[in-house]
Amino acid sequence: MSQLRKDPIVGRWTIIATERARRPAAFVDPQSTISDQKDCPFCHDKTSPILFESHGVKVVNSNTPILNDSKPFECRRHGLYEIAHSYGSHEIVIETPVHTANMADLLPEQIGRVFETYALRMKTHRQNPSIEYILAYKNYGVAAGSRNIGHSRSQIMAVPVSPVRVEDKINGAKAYFDIHERCLFCDIISQELKKKERVVVENEHFMVITPFASRFPFETWIIPKHHQCDFAEGIKGYERPLADMMKDILLRFKIGLNDPAYNYMIQTSPVKGPSAFKDYYHWHIEVIPRLTRVAGFERGTGFYICPIPPEMTAAFLREVDINA
Amino acid sequence: MSQLRKDPIVGRWTIIATERARRPAAFVDPQSTISDQKDCPFCHDKTSPILFESHGVKVVNSNTPILNDSKPFECRRHGLYEIAHSYGSHEIVIETPVHTANMADLLPEQIGRVFETYALRMKTHRQNPSIEYILAYKNYGVAAGSRNIGHSRSQIMAVPVSPVRVEDKINGAKAYFDIHERCLFCDIISQELKKKERVVVENEHFMVITPFASRFPFETWIIPKHHQCDFAEGIKGYERPLADMMKDILLRFKIGLNDPAYNYMIQTSPVKGPSAFKDYYHWHIEVIPRLTRVAGFERGTGFYICPIPPEMTAAFLREVDINA
Repeated sequence: MSQLRKDPIVGRWTIIATERARRPAAFVDPQSTISDQKDCPFCHDKTSPILFESHGVKVVNSNTPILNDSKPFECRRHGLYEIAHSYGSHEIVIETPVHTANMADLLPEQIGRVFETYALRMKTHRQNPSIEYILAYKNYGVAAGSRNIGHSRSQIMAVPVSPVRVEDKINGAKAYFDIHERCLFCDIISQELKKKERVVVENEHFMVITPFASRFPFETWIIPKHHQCDFAEGIKGYERPLADMMKDILLRFKIGLNDPAYNYMIQTSPVKGPSAFKDYYHWHIEVIPRLTRVAGFERGTGFYICPIPPEMTAAFLREVDINA
Repeated sequence: MSQLRKDPIVGRWTIIATERARRPAAFVDPQSTISDQKDCPFCHDKTSPILFESHGVKVVNSNTPILNDSKPFECRRHGLYEIAHSYGSHEIVIETPVHTANMADLLPEQIGRVFETYALRMKTHRQNPSIEYILAYKNYGVAAGSRNIGHSRSQIMAVPVSPVRVEDKINGAKAYFDIHERCLFCDIISQELKKKERVVVENEHFMVITPFASRFPFETWIIPKHHQCDFAEGIKGYERPLADMMKDILLRFKIGLNDPAYNYMIQTSPVKGPSAFKDYYHWHIEVIPRLTRVAGFERGTGFYICPIPPEMTAAFLREVDINA
């Protein structure tokens, strides 16, 4: 069984794969597989049993889960070190019955159903009192950490510890709220809508911006204009306008940047916490193409060098003709 | 002039390149250059004026600096956002006069001179009262963020803000010291030396381990066995035993993992801070081959999935015959 290990210096948790561990030699030249339709596991149900299915969206357990809930969550100490088996769940969302690689090519209705599915699975997982956070995310392309790039799908991880990145965002939003009694994200939305230099596209309910202190070239965030801390609640009735924005930005990447690898990560609030979350946190989605490699400076300091200003990438993305 | 921008949510600083900004289209298919000796800028002094030179190690300003100190450091606010020009210095350490790509192939004497040079430049930069941190690091190979891989060199960045990753380590070490009145790193060394399952190699003064909660496959740390918070002071008289350990681990990567890309980052204490740093922080070097890509889960949560246990990578690296 895989393990969760806590770094004794910074408190960061790592999942250490053991049973599905690859042999050392397997890292030397990792191969990617582009499966065609005839041997695609997601076309032919060569997956674990279906947990949920609706309108062509299917949810299954990962065939190589790095988290599972067969034993209760329990931490042990070895001297300085904390260790647990890697409790949680690891699900695959097969987004379409059709063998299509990029979510950019799905119909907006279908993308909306994928978001609806995330919300339903989040509501199921948070019944489990050992779960602290649920992340829905997508890896598209080899450079984004995917090894099989033939069939559009995403992943849902439910984990028993609160992730540091989410805590950093919560803490920042709380510090702002404590001073201003306003949501930091709502204030960012107002400020961005005034000058619009970093707005790529918007509709009534959502906007897509390139954030002011972007870490990566062409980094974008989809932010709901109405305040809501929780994705699963916030999305209700807004699946389609969100899907329109997601398809729009993914098409701009595909056409303008030559079908790059990308990740998206839904940044919703943790499962537990004070009810004050509701006032100061604001869910959003980071959508980031993988065009550069993080180097020693970023790894060594945790701050980033972005080789192009976000105002320039927003202007570039606005000009991409997605109806071409 | 490039900018430093502070993320209003998590407080992370990003350097946004403006004058050396690449055009959007340049990200679509970035090309690497492997320069051969006849047109290598580092063989033929096609670089900025030499700032320092000793025994074949040269230090020059970057030709495309992303930091410079021509104007004093000053932060401005634009509404919610903080911005400054990217104050600091960005130097290249040309490690050898010989056109050799990988530090693994330099003589240990020469590697020792590189470390001595880092220490001298750090002592120079910290005279500047606007500098908060100095990072010496290396990017080897395209996957590690280097675009020209012909001539062994490393980089020194002196920055006017304290990096979040260093602060996280300092805070963790301080919390431990406040309870135990001992250095956390010294206690990690003792614990690791007892079982030795994560020790790759050691000599009288240094040890190389694969850390307990490794983020990346084959992640290693070089840790001095004697307590010292500051690299520039701590290295004095120990350049050669450190160089021996660095050459050893880089050869194990080169031979055992087929010449992979890698980064190393010297994790020394910040320039400013309480004198108590001396008791609770302990410098070390992270040396990490770039064999996998970080995916959406890591990006979305800040925690990591390491696909192989560090005990297994330590055993693999120990068995590599570096005298073959």
